[in-house]
Amino acid sequence: MNLHALYHRSKQSWAYAYDLKTVKLRLRTERNDIETVDVVYGDKYNWNMTEQTASMHKWMSDELYDYWEAAVQPPNGRLSYRFYLKKGESRIWYSERWCKEQPPKESFGNFEYPYLSSADIISPPSWVKDAVFYQIFPERFANGNPAISPAHAQPWGGTPTTDNYFGGDLQGVIDHLDYLAELGINAIYLNPLFLAPSYHKYDTIDYWQVDPHFGTNETLKQLVTACHAKGIRVLLDLVFNHCGSHFPPFVDVLEKGQDSKYADWFLVREWPMQVKDGKASYETFGFEPTMPKFNTANPELCEYLLNIAKFWIEETDIDGYRLDVANEVDHRFWRKLREVVKAAKPEAFLLGEIMHDSMAWLQGDQLDAVMNYPVTDFALKFFVKNVMDSREFADAIATQLTFYPQQVNEAAFNLLSSHDIPRLLTLCKGNKDRMKLASIFQFTYPGAPCMYYGDEIGLTGENDPDNRKCMEWNTAKQDHDLLDFFKKAIAMRKKYASLRYGDFIFLSAEPKDFRLIYERKLGEERFVIIMNAAPHPQRIDAYISEGEWEDAWNGGFIEVGMAYSVTLPGFGFQILRAKELKS
Amino acid sequence: MNLHALYHRSKQSWAYAYDLKTVKLRLRTERNDIETVDVVYGDKYNWNMTEQTASMHKWMSDELYDYWEAAVQPPNGRLSYRFYLKKGESRIWYSERWCKEQPPKESFGNFEYPYLSSADIISPPSWVKDAVFYQIFPERFANGNPAISPAHAQPWGGTPTTDNYFGGDLQGVIDHLDYLAELGINAIYLNPLFLAPSYHKYDTIDYWQVDPHFGTNETLKQLVTACHAKGIRVLLDLVFNHCGSHFPPFVDVLEKGQDSKYADWFLVREWPMQVKDGKASYETFGFEPTMPKFNTANPELCEYLLNIAKFWIEETDIDGYRLDVANEVDHRFWRKLREVVKAAKPEAFLLGEIMHDSMAWLQGDQLDAVMNYPVTDFALKFFVKNVMDSREFADAIATQLTFYPQQVNEAAFNLLSSHDIPRLLTLCKGNKDRMKLASIFQFTYPGAPCMYYGDEIGLTGENDPDNRKCMEWNTAKQDHDLLDFFKKAIAMRKKYASLRYGDFIFLSAEPKDFRLIYERKLGEERFVIIMNAAPHPQRIDAYISEGEWEDAWNGGFIEVGMAYSVTLPGFGFQILRAKELKS
Repeated sequence: MNLHALYHRSKQSWAYAYDLKTVKLRLRTERNDIETVDVVYGDKYNWNMTEQTASMHKWMSDELYDYWEAAVQPPNGRLSYRFYLKKGESRIWYSERWCKEQPPKESFGNFEYPYLSSADIISPPSWVKDAVFYQIFPERFANGNPAISPAHAQPWGGTPTTDNYFGGDLQGVIDHLDYLAELGINAIYLNPLFLAPSYHKYDTIDYWQVDPHFGTNETLKQLVTACHAKGIRVLLDLVFNHCGSHFPPFVDVLEKGQDSKYADWFLVREWPMQVKDGKASYETFGFEPTMPKFNTANPELCEYLLNIAKFWIEETDIDGYRLDVANEVDHRFWRKLREVVKAAKPEAFLLGEIMHDSMAWLQGDQLDAVMNYPVTDFALKFFVKNVMDSREFADAIATQLTFYPQQVNEAAFNLLSSHDIPRLLTLCKGNKDRMKLASIFQFTYPGAPCMYYGDEIGLTGENDPDNRKCMEWNTAKQDHDLLDFFKKAIAMRKKYASLRYGDFIFLSAEPKDFRLIYERKLGEERFVIIMNAAPHPQRIDAYISEGEWEDAWNGGFIEVGMAYSVTLPGFGFQILRAKELKS
Repeated sequence: MNLHALYHRSKQSWAYAYDLKTVKLRLRTERNDIETVDVVYGDKYNWNMTEQTASMHKWMSDELYDYWEAAVQPPNGRLSYRFYLKKGESRIWYSERWCKEQPPKESFGNFEYPYLSSADIISPPSWVKDAVFYQIFPERFANGNPAISPAHAQPWGGTPTTDNYFGGDLQGVIDHLDYLAELGINAIYLNPLFLAPSYHKYDTIDYWQVDPHFGTNETLKQLVTACHAKGIRVLLDLVFNHCGSHFPPFVDVLEKGQDSKYADWFLVREWPMQVKDGKASYETFGFEPTMPKFNTANPELCEYLLNIAKFWIEETDIDGYRLDVANEVDHRFWRKLREVVKAAKPEAFLLGEIMHDSMAWLQGDQLDAVMNYPVTDFALKFFVKNVMDSREFADAIATQLTFYPQQVNEAAFNLLSSHDIPRLLTLCKGNKDRMKLASIFQFTYPGAPCMYYGDEIGLTGENDPDNRKCMEWNTAKQDHDLLDFFKKAIAMRKKYASLRYGDFIFLSAEPKDFRLIYERKLGEERFVIIMNAAPHPQRIDAYISEGEWEDAWNGGFIEVGMAYSVTLPGFGFQILRAKELKS
């Protein structure tokens, strides 16, 4: 046994409350090293009478490790536990202070999940795992009120630069809600809306006011009401890492220096606060002097920002926030924000922009979920660029899933396009089959999928500003084949709970291969998804249960006998739903 | 290389802010496997221009692993990093998603400590690392006001049972503050004081009132004032996991059942709430029906308890709380308690009773420190019972130190006796040399030592109730040899900062041996402590720097040449302080 490979630590993703009765435990071992793992557990106040054993199952495997999992119900809510590993004749007991061939003599020194409190259960809003998001970049979605367009707005459909305008606004969104409802999405995420000089509005001047080029606070209220009437939830983009350099308190500090009552709202490295040779003497977002970073450790600023978060929920009944650059804002601030937001609306969703392992923000005390950019990256590398093979892809996805508790994975925000990366169709070099295959993965993977406006009708675009083109509303110019595809994919996901939050298991993923098979399973409902991510046709052998399966995408039924084999075209896929299986 | 042994995850004890400029990074590898480890780090917004390399040093080693550490200063506060490991001709790059022989092509996928915010620095009160605590069990320390003693109180010095009284009170503590000041301690931890039927007061009836047998709220105020006048801080024991069964809201629920407005303050498994055949139908501390567990998820209860925590600080100016059964109370509650307590007194100390890995409570958002029972256990097994050898002891201690950030280790609460375990002298079977050796370790180890009342004058006692004997105030019956020893040990610790919060490094700890050498180092100040934990004399070779050393315990100077060797009696020790070393 490679004992050095073992890892477990109570809490985080290793031992977490799943519901009021259940704690899920995970253990890391070297891949293909250990044969069986049991967890021995009980109540430490009466270990001898409560001690019991549960076997763990090999839940996930990645390049280096196996991850074992078990769900246990702590007697009296108190969980003391140790692991028992077997390989051939070898036996190992593993606890917080013990990794030996002999069983420990006492329960003291066991791992502990000391008490399952309801308050500690990580609980993202339940609607999120059923959501299909649609991201709208307001300046580019639709111009519903030309009267408020910027004076210098260009004709709709022109070429976007880093500083031109086309007059998109909130009325434009309201006008197209039927379109969105028909597409099937049930949540929209709006890029920033508040008063700001730029077209993207990430450089806020006034957090209390919808930018007049987008409408009024009243228009936003109408938008939310209209969305809710159609069962569509609304997420706003909240930029609390930094403001714009025209934000009045920042201007005040520029003018008054250390005498400004807002001096401590910012992180000034050196007075006077200034920009010299393009370099700011204060901390900024990235190296951007027009985006001064907030000092969220300042209590007055903190209160100011929290009131903003509360205001928009109370004022417009929005359903949550996407929090910009969430990882560069302190944890204490997010804890306070969570309290304020959840008090105003318990089902509000707090989604952070974090692109790396985010466990430290997802312990139930701060954010509900993060934008799942690592999975974006893996999906693009496997489906779109073919620079990862099936095994590498499956390993990378597995690692990612092991980072978080199950309920966190179910609330992940899965995207393949956004305003910050090139559009999917462009990355696919116009190959719609590639695009569809990657999207099928997105729509059959745990976590809420998010589409970027226009991807569904064939918008293209390289990086910013090209990925922020005007939405195409001329139906003659829309790609109806793509549109139908996305309607169907969304409908399928919405129809089957197992595609949303069933168990996710790779059935086949081999090195130097681009064929992939995985399963989604929830109670009796079971899907097997077979994919060919290579450009050429390939035969795929799938070891799936005998019996009748439905082709859930193309329709029809398939009788599977001792073996099942299918030849899929390049970028082809098959989605099988178990109908009546033998056994 | 055993790549499977690697472990790192940003935040917790692996990547943490140490001060406003510094992040400390740790990496786990197999013991004696890797030759060098570098960390390559930079600002992700400009990786190419900011990338730099720092070498890590082998900080700790335990049975299975080496732990490497480096302190780095993130450029612009933002830290993106990966590790670079070498062994012979092998090279490995290790990042959040990479463990390969080739360097990653992009910084995306690195580990990230995304921004060093002042609010995220774990900061226990600075006084704690300079504290020497003295634990007082109020009913048994001194009777300063016989008028308020329980009617049935027995004569001072009688045999304690599980339900008798001797009349100890707060005036008794006040009366002996000179004694404590002379001993040298600078903080006292008082077991529970509030109105409760038992002698130990862990079954609270009224959280707002000092038990009349101990005094009044006014007496407590006087006690704190008198302590502060002598530079002694005061910690109260706060029991928020459960109350006593005579607590009026619990009695109300007993009487009114689900109609009681306090019904949700408790965790009732089955109505009616009752005790049948000794088994409670509600959750309790352990299996004790007289100690009903609180439902801290209830907001009204929460507010009630938080007000209590605030009240005693504001009313009496105490310096913090020891929180009973802290691990069985939900994290959200402790986060709120921290806010309330630190708002009332920023330098208040929050010490939790947790006996296992407590990282989940010590992230800066909940507790400041925990009672270091694992170290108690190791020290007793090594020094007192000799069932762990030097190597096992050093390995166990190392694992424990790696669990936490440095500032958390510096604030640990280190005890060898308490009201919950047999007294040290009793465990040592009366062998005072053994007791002294274990205590020297306690007083030269990182974290604040806590003495249990009476240990210093030779009180003995098996487990509860025997470990709660009356304090011996008859000086003729006190062990003055022990008392002098503790005065000296305390004075030495208080004199040298390196003994309190210098680096701690084992210099020698071999298997099947009971000799131990370790070092404490802070700037220029350096100690080497040499111990013989065996009952018989042993010669010890210490590889220490040439030059002049002071015998800091016995006085005198030692000239160390090429080698140093000393023969120590059974349970003997030598404490050497560097004077003038050749380098």
